[in-house]
Amino acid sequence: MSTESPILRIDLESAVPVYEQLSNGIRSELVAGRLRPGQQLPTVRELALNLGVHHNTVAEAYRLLAREGWLDLRRGRGALVIARQQPEPTEQARNEFARRLRELAAKAIAQGVPKPEVSGEMRALSSELDRGGQQ
Amino acid sequence: MSTESPILRIDLESAVPVYEQLSNGIRSELVAGRLRPGQQLPTVRELALNLGVHHNTVAEAYRLLAREGWLDLRRGRGALVIARQQPEPTEQARNEFARRLRELAAKAIAQGVPKPEVSGEMRALSSELDRGGQQ
Repeated sequence: MSTESPILRIDLESAVPVYEQLSNGIRSELVAGRLRPGQQLPTVRELALNLGVHHNTVAEAYRLLAREGWLDLRRGRGALVIARQQPEPTEQARNEFARRLRELAAKAIAQGVPKPEVSGEMRALSSELDRGGQQ
Repeated sequence: MSTESPILRIDLESAVPVYEQLSNGIRSELVAGRLRPGQQLPTVRELALNLGVHHNTVAEAYRLLAREGWLDLRRGRGALVIARQQPEPTEQARNEFARRLRELAAKAIAQGVPKPEVSGEMRALSSELDRGGQQ
């Protein structure tokens, strides 16, 4: 994982907590298969230095991803990507996705992003998923 | 606006601050045109009571939407939906939408929501936008 990846750009103005921005960005890479089991993530210290955030923030993001089953954080192993069993989706996860998708689109449109662009971005990602991306 | 609307369900477990959950839900209604200029929102006190949240939380959500140009909060007028000029989109808004869309899809897939379902939800909303919904 390149720590210069735009995926891991941190926005200190955002209402989304920094540890969550970090875990969101890393999770995207994991789901897309660009980070694979057996790969080593940067150490907490390295990533914190590179991003200019507190090391507790990186540690919190790593712990969240470890709880989700993506990382093994045993002492001395660093942050190791591990094979993860896909969980059964809860009804809450399904509903939350549908609701937040609408909220996200509404926010973009409210910020002036043209509707065809919002629509096109969703259609593009949808096709990418159908072709087997973001697995 | 029905205060029992599922759009305004508050999730106290969520990492998203409650005032932001509230403003997101109301913004979705505004963008979709289900709340229109001239309509009156519930008072801060009413909505806070109905949702079981602190009135400062509702006030914060209303102020955020007022700053975005959706509401007029002048004393004695309550919370009035007003006509809003669509702003020019910034490059940041466009990029943020694209990035967060991917993060949201990744999170849902990581929670076990099947890819065809995630993809289908996006395609459905995309078609809805093309037909003129969420304007």
